Parts: sequence; structure tokens; C-alpha cells
Amino acid sequence: MIHFDYHFKVRYKDIDQMGVMYYSRYYEYYEAARTDMMHSIGLSYKELETQGIMMPVVHSESDYLAGPEFDDHIICRTEIREIHKNRMEIFYTLAADSDMTKVINKGKTVHAFLKMNGRPTRMPESLKQILVQKWNN
Amino acid sequence: MIHFDYHFKVRYKDIDQMGVMYYSRYYEYYEAARTDMMHSIGLSYKELETQGIMMPVVHSESDYLAGPEFDDHIICRTEIREIHKNRMEIFYTLAADSDMTKVINKGKTVHAFLKMNGRPTRMPESLKQILVQKWNN
Amino acid sequence: MIHFDYHFKVRYKDIDQMGVMYYSRYYEYYEAARTDMMHSIGLSYKELETQGIMMPVVHSESDYLAGPEFDDHIICRTEIREIHKNRMEIFYTLAADSDMTKVINKGKTVHAFLKMNGRPTRMPESLKQILVQKWNN
Amino acid sequence: MIHFDYHFKVRYKDIDQMGVMYYSRYYEYYEAARTDMMHSIGLSYKELETQGIMMPVVHSESDYLAGPEFDDHIICRTEIREIHKNRMEIFYTLAADSDMTKVINKGKTVHAFLKMNGRPTRMPESLKQILVQKWNN
Repeated sequence: MIHFDYHFKVRYKDIDQMGVMYYSRYYEYYEAARTDMMHSIGLSYKELETQGIMMPVVHSESDYLAGPEFDDHIICRTEIREIHKNRMEIFYTLAADSDMTKVINKGKTVHAFLKMNGRPTRMPESLKQILVQKWNN
Repeated sequence: MIHFDYHFKVRYKDIDQMGVMYYSRYYEYYEAARTDMMHSIGLSYKELETQGIMMPVVHSESDYLAGPEFDDHIICRTEIREIHKNRMEIFYTLAADSDMTKVINKGKTVHAFLKMNGRPTRMPESLKQILVQKWNN
Repeated sequence: MIHFDYHFKVRYKDIDQMGVMYYSRYYEYYEAARTDMMHSIGLSYKELETQGIMMPVVHSESDYLAGPEFDDHIICRTEIREIHKNRMEIFYTLAADSDMTKVINKGKTVHAFLKMNGRPTRMPESLKQILVQKWNN
Repeated sequence: MIHFDYHFKVRYKDIDQMGVMYYSRYYEYYEAARTDMMHSIGLSYKELETQGIMMPVVHSESDYLAGPEFDDHIICRTEIREIHKNRMEIFYTLAADSDMTKVINKGKTVHAFLKMNGRPTRMPESLKQILVQKWNN
């Protein structure tokens, strides 16, 4: 399994009238978390785009267990639990403490691989190698 | 079944570097669609809050089939397909044409009912009556 | 003067913990307003981009006089008050009533004209003609 | 003068079709920057709200000199240049390098002080003391 802990603070922009994070804002933090996870294993999404590969989200989901408040410090544990040929699945578990005992949110995104002309393609070999290598360490 | 068609135009703010709508922005339009659906059957979310009832999202999901571009006119068909006691499930189907033949996105949100103190409660009787009445017409 | 009234409803996504619209969200509505103003005079921003012209915002500002609440219906009066050669200035006045007596916000954006290579250029002749024609009617 | 450097990375959510940061997103980073600046001098906006003081933005502005791209690392230098009785003015200077030689954006926000009933008030004495003390160090 590949995993990475992304830390963030809940901002005023994220909070709605109920005093907790608005439901679509979690997905923005998922993006930050997975970008930094990829950096942590030596992958750059920007570089992938330069190579002509896009990784659009084809599915996203989120379960909201408790609402974080303004200024809360949140950990977003980001995981790749399996390596697939044609897609990448990333899991997110959010908690307010580093022991991850009080989970407040669980999410998932699924990414396809597309060439710049919009046609589906397999996971690039370079990406696969990095994932497998990281997996075995 | 209760349904409502919400129309919107894709804005520059919604579009990312790939030239299509960013994945979290769909959820903002789901919110607009369900608020207006509720208005269309004589329900006001604002009024519910005044009565001391909140309807936080406890689950959300989205399948991205094709990416709408800047300035596209989109229809978001919003449906309640079943009436539940303790939650509300709302389905969203997005298409670029009113025949809904070219579906570009499917989504779902699940809402719990909470009192202002944060404790779960059942669907308020007033809301249930409106839904049932609307359902039978 | 060229003007256009854009109508919108304040959404839950826009509202912060103080119960009023978050300060950056106004700028998103300014964008919707100016895009629709341009459409109303026969101009399409999308078409401009196809012609190789971009109109990035080089300055934006906003004065917040009163905070609109969730579900409020707002009118955003959008105006071009002068025609310039090298830039476009657009003014926004927001009110909750069509008489525009209770102004809640005033804003302004300034747009440059750029070629696709990022170099500044003058207002395209086609755009200028449409503005002048509209101005004189 | 009181100043603080806030660091952030430009995310995919921030980038529009032109490949640069969308103009309203800067304001979200200004908020993160000023919140952390306040923390850095021992002030908590959350605590102010608990004391019954709100600091709504009454004016905001931004000058866009160059567009940061996805994954760019940006420094937002945040400054209080004068201490006022009835408002707080905060200045933002964004650059891609720590020498602040290549400035890409300049912004400003003005904040009023309100009691929870919405009536204007002066800067709380506790806040003023912290600012003055920090100023003199």
C-alpha cells in the first residue's frame, strides 16, 4: 500500500452557515492530498500532462461523519490500496488527530488515463514502475 | 417520483486546465438544483432551519461521463426516487440537451435530519406530508 | 453606457459562518454577470478565445455594504461606462430589489486584451464596433 | 510594520482554462495568509468571534501582474502597515521567489469590527495591545 498524510487547516472559505465544512470543499482537499502524495513518491501530475497524459476524475464519493470547524487542523490520510491497469483509485481518511482515531470523513476518487486527444489509455509504464517500486518498499 | 429540472450555464470559474468542469464544482450545482427542487414543491430549506431542522449531507457521489465546457447550457434533472423516514436521497442526472440523451454526469446526495443541537431526528412531519402529496400528484 | 441586469440566488455554498456571502464569492457572480452582459450584446467570450484573444482580469475590487443571506434573490447591475482602447472596465452594483435602492455591494473589474502568446494587444476591432453600436442605441 | 510570509502551492482547483489562477481564488489565499499572520502574533480569529467580535471584509482589491500556474510555490507576504482605530487594513504581495523580486500579485483587504448584533465597534483593546506590542518589537 502507498500512503501519505496531508495536513491542512480549515479556512473560513470552507465553512458554511451550519458552522462546519461545506460538502464540496472536501474534494478540493482530496486534490491537494493526492497531488502531494504523488510528489512524495517522485511523481508530478504536471509532468504527466507534459507527457501528454491526463488523469481526469471519473468517480468521486465522500462520507461525512462529523463536521470540522474553522481553524481545525485536519490530517487527510491518502492511500493507494491496489494498482490497476486502466485507472487509479485513491482513498482518503480525514481525522483531527494523528492517531486517526476520530475519523470525520472518508472519501474516494477514481481516475482514468487519457491521451491529450481524449482517448483512454493504460497507466503509463513510467507511472506504473514508480508505483510498484514504492509499493515494494 | 418527484423531479425537477434545474438549468445552468457553465462558468469560467468552473473550468480547469483540461478545459472542462472541475470535479468538485458539480456538487455546487447539485446544491442549487435540490434547493430549487424543494422550492418547486413548496419547501424552503431556509424555513426548515428556522424550524430548527438541519439537513446536512452525509454522503455524496458523482460519476463523470463527459466534461462540459465553458458556456455550455446544462440541465440537471433532480429526483427523489423513494421516501425514507430518516434521510433524504436525491439523484442528479446532467445532460446538455433537454431530451437527456447525452448524459454527462450522474450524482447522488444523502441528507440526514438533525436538530439544532446536532442530534439526529426523523424527517419532519410537515416535510413528509409535502413529499407524499407531491408524490401522489 | 451599456448595462445589463444579471439575477441570481445566493446559495448555501456562498454563505459563511457569519450567515452572509463569503467575500470572494461576489467575484464569481461578477464573472457570470459580465459573461451574460456580453452575450446580451451579441458577444461571446468563448468566440473571442477562438479568435485568439484572451481577456484576463488585471484588477478587481469590491465594496461590501451589506451581506446577502442564503436564498436571497440578488440583482447584479453590470455596466460599461466608458470605452477604452487597451482595456475593458466593468462595474457591478448589487441590490436585493429591482429599484436598486438598497445597494449591498459595488464592484469593478478591469480586463486587458492578450494574444494567445501572452502579449498585450488592443481591443479587437470587432468587439469595439459592437460596443460602439450598442452604446449609440 | 507587522508582516508574515504565508506559503502555498497552486492547486488544480485554482487554475482556469487560460492555465493560470482564477481571479477570485487569490482572495481565498489572502484569507489563509491573514489568519496565519494573526496566529503568528498570538491572535485567533476564532477567539475574537467567541468574544463577540466579527471582522467582516468591507473592501477587497487585487492587481494581477502575472498568472501563477499549477503546482507553483507562492509566497504571500502579508502586512499591517498602519494601525487604525475602526478598521484593519491588510496588504498582500505575492511572488514565486522568497526574494520577492518577481511580484505576481498585490492585494488589500479592509476589515471592520462588528458586534454580534451587527453594530460597528472599535478595534477591541486586547487586539490593539497585541498589535502595538508586536509593532514595537
